[in-house]
Amino acid sequence: MVKVGIIMGSDSDLPIMKETAEVLEDFEIEYELTVISAHRTPAKAEEYAKTAEDRGLEVIIAGAGKAAHLAGVLAAYTSLPVIGVPIKTSTLGGNDSLYSMVQMPGGVPVATVALNGAKNAGLLAIQILGVANQEIREKFKKYKEKMADKVKETAEELENLGYQEYLNNHS
Amino acid sequence: MVKVGIIMGSDSDLPIMKETAEVLEDFEIEYELTVISAHRTPAKAEEYAKTAEDRGLEVIIAGAGKAAHLAGVLAAYTSLPVIGVPIKTSTLGGNDSLYSMVQMPGGVPVATVALNGAKNAGLLAIQILGVANQEIREKFKKYKEKMADKVKETAEELENLGYQEYLNNHS
Amino acid sequence: MVKVGIIMGSDSDLPIMKETAEVLEDFEIEYELTVISAHRTPAKAEEYAKTAEDRGLEVIIAGAGKAAHLAGVLAAYTSLPVIGVPIKTSTLGGNDSLYSMVQMPGGVPVATVALNGAKNAGLLAIQILGVANQEIREKFKKYKEKMADKVKETAEELENLGYQEYLNNHS
Amino acid sequence: MVKVGIIMGSDSDLPIMKETAEVLEDFEIEYELTVISAHRTPAKAEEYAKTAEDRGLEVIIAGAGKAAHLAGVLAAYTSLPVIGVPIKTSTLGGNDSLYSMVQMPGGVPVATVALNGAKNAGLLAIQILGVANQEIREKFKKYKEKMADKVKETAEELENLGYQEYLNNHS
Amino acid sequence: MVKVGIIMGSDSDLPIMKETAEVLEDFEIEYELTVISAHRTPAKAEEYAKTAEDRGLEVIIAGAGKAAHLAGVLAAYTSLPVIGVPIKTSTLGGNDSLYSMVQMPGGVPVATVALNGAKNAGLLAIQILGVANQEIREKFKKYKEKMADKVKETAEELENLGYQEYLNNHS
Amino acid sequence: MVKVGIIMGSDSDLPIMKETAEVLEDFEIEYELTVISAHRTPAKAEEYAKTAEDRGLEVIIAGAGKAAHLAGVLAAYTSLPVIGVPIKTSTLGGNDSLYSMVQMPGGVPVATVALNGAKNAGLLAIQILGVANQEIREKFKKYKEKMADKVKETAEELENLGYQEYLNNHS
Amino acid sequence: MVKVGIIMGSDSDLPIMKETAEVLEDFEIEYELTVISAHRTPAKAEEYAKTAEDRGLEVIIAGAGKAAHLAGVLAAYTSLPVIGVPIKTSTLGGNDSLYSMVQMPGGVPVATVALNGAKNAGLLAIQILGVANQEIREKFKKYKEKMADKVKETAEELENLGYQEYLNNHS
Amino acid sequence: MVKVGIIMGSDSDLPIMKETAEVLEDFEIEYELTVISAHRTPAKAEEYAKTAEDRGLEVIIAGAGKAAHLAGVLAAYTSLPVIGVPIKTSTLGGNDSLYSMVQMPGGVPVATVALNGAKNAGLLAIQILGVANQEIREKFKKYKEKMADKVKETAEELENLGYQEYLNNHS
Repeated sequence: MVKVGIIMGSDSDLPIMKETAEVLEDFEIEYELTVISAHRTPAKAEEYAKTAEDRGLEVIIAGAGKAAHLAGVLAAYTSLPVIGVPIKTSTLGGNDSLYSMVQMPGGVPVATVALNGAKNAGLLAIQILGVANQEIREKFKKYKEKMADKVKETAEELENLGYQEYLNNHS
Repeated sequence: MVKVGIIMGSDSDLPIMKETAEVLEDFEIEYELTVISAHRTPAKAEEYAKTAEDRGLEVIIAGAGKAAHLAGVLAAYTSLPVIGVPIKTSTLGGNDSLYSMVQMPGGVPVATVALNGAKNAGLLAIQILGVANQEIREKFKKYKEKMADKVKETAEELENLGYQEYLNNHS
Repeated sequence: MVKVGIIMGSDSDLPIMKETAEVLEDFEIEYELTVISAHRTPAKAEEYAKTAEDRGLEVIIAGAGKAAHLAGVLAAYTSLPVIGVPIKTSTLGGNDSLYSMVQMPGGVPVATVALNGAKNAGLLAIQILGVANQEIREKFKKYKEKMADKVKETAEELENLGYQEYLNNHS
Repeated sequence: MVKVGIIMGSDSDLPIMKETAEVLEDFEIEYELTVISAHRTPAKAEEYAKTAEDRGLEVIIAGAGKAAHLAGVLAAYTSLPVIGVPIKTSTLGGNDSLYSMVQMPGGVPVATVALNGAKNAGLLAIQILGVANQEIREKFKKYKEKMADKVKETAEELENLGYQEYLNNHS
Repeated sequence: MVKVGIIMGSDSDLPIMKETAEVLEDFEIEYELTVISAHRTPAKAEEYAKTAEDRGLEVIIAGAGKAAHLAGVLAAYTSLPVIGVPIKTSTLGGNDSLYSMVQMPGGVPVATVALNGAKNAGLLAIQILGVANQEIREKFKKYKEKMADKVKETAEELENLGYQEYLNNHS
Repeated sequence: MVKVGIIMGSDSDLPIMKETAEVLEDFEIEYELTVISAHRTPAKAEEYAKTAEDRGLEVIIAGAGKAAHLAGVLAAYTSLPVIGVPIKTSTLGGNDSLYSMVQMPGGVPVATVALNGAKNAGLLAIQILGVANQEIREKFKKYKEKMADKVKETAEELENLGYQEYLNNHS
Repeated sequence: MVKVGIIMGSDSDLPIMKETAEVLEDFEIEYELTVISAHRTPAKAEEYAKTAEDRGLEVIIAGAGKAAHLAGVLAAYTSLPVIGVPIKTSTLGGNDSLYSMVQMPGGVPVATVALNGAKNAGLLAIQILGVANQEIREKFKKYKEKMADKVKETAEELENLGYQEYLNNHS
Repeated sequence: MVKVGIIMGSDSDLPIMKETAEVLEDFEIEYELTVISAHRTPAKAEEYAKTAEDRGLEVIIAGAGKAAHLAGVLAAYTSLPVIGVPIKTSTLGGNDSLYSMVQMPGGVPVATVALNGAKNAGLLAIQILGVANQEIREKFKKYKEKMADKVKETAEELENLGYQEYLNNHS
């Protein structure tokens, strides 16, 4: 059953937001993914958020850039936790996307992750689902361990090769 | 007949947004003024924007702070021009309010004025109404002249008194 | 009859500002388009703004970058609504252009749109003209509907194809 | 049983972070609240995060300012979702606290809310707990309704009184 | 004969801009001081700049805040060097005033000093006048020496008293 | 006789700073140009500034990036006007270079121009030299006229060709 | 013997910079403290830095604000490590002081601490002195332990009292 | 014996951080270099910092980007001086990395150098080691002299060739 909805404001956000989908696939969490614009298709945004819970969704993830209202607009219409991914655009160093997402007023939080942090949005959704699902939680712990192992392997390789050879091998 | 709708996200914006009302009163433009939160009362925001045109409104002015989505949310649901007043709050020097308003995506503009520029929002509404209303346009011209005269009087007084006496008189 | 004047501070702004022209063409609104520098040809800026109304213009759109005074200088000399397009340059993330346009003092508003928001400047002009012109207003409503349809089609395609195939098809 | 841990980097954050506690009390969610410094008591931060899950915690909320590492340090040692509250200090407009929290690297998300958004951190925790707890979810829906009602009452009062009398009554 | 014109955009800038006047008085340089708004009295700004040279002015100093176009507008109409004083206002940390002044396009420089740097604007004018006037240059050298002496006296007092007694004496 | 000294902190600034030289050549103002690092060759910076006046220099222009102390260090040791060109580097959007130059303390001004504004630095030097030199001043007036003419020619071409053909011709 | 030199650009920095002195006193490290302005008394800055090593100094700490060149200027003339304390002033959120200190070019580092981080500057000096002095290093370890204990006591008190009573007791 | 530990948060920082290694090699200071992630391998970070002193390290250098906690986390667990290199990433102009490193709370300093200032981190370590090691200090003095000579040679070449030929030769 679909547990996570991934929404983005434009298909130009897809090269970033697909990382959310990939993470969820790794964890075998069912998700749906589509484009809804808070400003161009506001009625669809409203309907999506209003029906999300009844359709069984448990977390919504929204990625958007510039005046990134999408996550906030969805959060206004649902009681589910909404995770926001501010998409970095070419203007203002990304501060526009970030501030528009994170600075929500009292009463309507958006759980904001880093600029272009689509992968972390997926992981945060997994952590949230894991609160009541021991199996998911265990998978996440293994993920963390594997991630640590990978850093350690990198470290070991770098220590063994020295930085010059390491850079040669990885360029 | 009410031509301008003044909306603010919270009554804490009223000390700023009343300046819009005052300007419209000076020009004898009928307006309505209320509080609608894009995030706490999204359905009301939608309804307000959707019915605005039929109720005879010609311009909507929206003031909001932080992740200031109000103007964008209204603009999504109406074809009327929407003027946005980013309200300065204590965080991020006001950039959050400004960016959230002005950086709207293609297709849904918000005519943004300065931080706390509620007075200018009213004047911009008057200029817009003046496009098709010679009487309002003439009033605006007189307003500009009076404004210039006032600056000139200030200049004259300052030149006559010298800066020390001027500062003494005006402190 | 020409209703909208599109002015830019330099021909280097033309690749952005042509989007304003394209939008107006789509709506069959007559416009004129030229280059006037607030700093290098100030007398021409003044003359343009002063005569705009008598020549029948109803809205002026000004695009400029860096210390972007053009919109403000035009607004100082006309009673018509002035829309400002801050052009993103390579410095300061575009904040210089944005702040120089939007932070106008009380009495002389500039209706500022997003950085490089030339398309939205055109649409805002159309909304302003639509206040007193039912035909233009209807066209704008259809534009909004078409825009929503296009987002929905994108969404449908993405949902049908899945993100991988969608990305393959659109890269 | 204690479900939420509220941690702050210094007791100077308490006037803000108590809002998290108050929200949780309103929802009758048991919580614990203490001071742990990521930099001055790193071992305690580690121990807290490592044992949180076994002690039955389901969400951790961390408030900190300046180089606000606390949420990230806790997130490094736990699989529970970690919510970060960037505390506004007097320097850099709060950007230091915000960036230090939200810009987490891939693999270790922190669910960041607004600067000083302690209340929203509590509400986000409630939304997360509500994913698997229908009772909490229902409470949150009622909270949203009450919040909307309050805005509507404010709007009604403002509309009835007019802005002048409203401001007189509320100053 | 009046050599320096001090212009400010509003009499609210006077508490800062009077420091320019005071410096010029110290150096016995004749100046004139008035208020001209680039946006509210643009014709006066133009006239002032155009006639400045014929009236014998040698340097113009302009102080303004927010979208601070004044210095640039004056520079557009004169060949005299124009010094800009960005006035710090409560918004955007002063970046609006600074960027609007300093980021002038090629061809029309504004010699920008620090935010609220009215005193330095006066000194820069004196340095410019001193290029061709040995007497003024000598005065400026003495000013620099006196300034150095004052810092040295402060240092000596602090070294002699120790910081605690020094702070007691100066608080 | 050499009247203007052009100093830069590193030869990496030369592609920008050569524009200053080119402008001075256009005006037939003799200049000297070299590299001095405020931090790597501080003694040379000191010596340069101290001897500048006796060697007949009338204006010093300094270009530097990042923690751009060069202009300030030169200004500390000379009574001549010092013009600063903040060089845009890849970090911090250029704010580091700009702030380090323009925010000089009371007593030691640096006449700061735009980021990478090397051309304007040359023109400002010319305006300063023109204060006491009618010939230079006349040349500058002609320069301004030519600059205006060029903008007008651009405008005319654009108006005649239309934007599409103009863009075709100029791309 | 005096091991640490504390320099500040102005006596207005003393209320911050005295914290450096207090820390060094706690550790019984001899220091000297005075005012030297990089721009008003550049020769003294040069002399101080050049003679510091011969006079037995081992670390120099420099506090300054705005275009904060002091630390860089001292670093240019000495081989001793130079610690910089960017002083927060009212402009630009403190970014001017911070960028001017930290963004030093290759070859001349300044060890920069937080805005107003005078206490940490002292501690960093102690860590540096501790590299070759076991006694100082042991003292620093005890300082860290005491600091941790104090946080733990705060935590214990807060846990025991609850936040309401804690806030009552500490307000 | 290894005196300096160079740690980076990810091997993507290596192209920058290798400059630290190169500087230390030039000075014949033994170092070790590896990858440790404050967030992905927190236990390793802790262990590294805790054992650093006993293993004979005298200075730790940490490079990291975005929410750059690494230096602070290491500093929390060691009494050795920790030098931080904020790595510029593509977001937020590098302010995220810088603020996360430099804005450390009282008690736990990080000696922060410029964005990507890996070379200066190495030199700062050398200066710190030089406090108690006359040989290293002498080497650093020679380094400074050579650096000055190189700037002077550049200056000489530029002065001799003129800027055009110089640019031709060096492009």
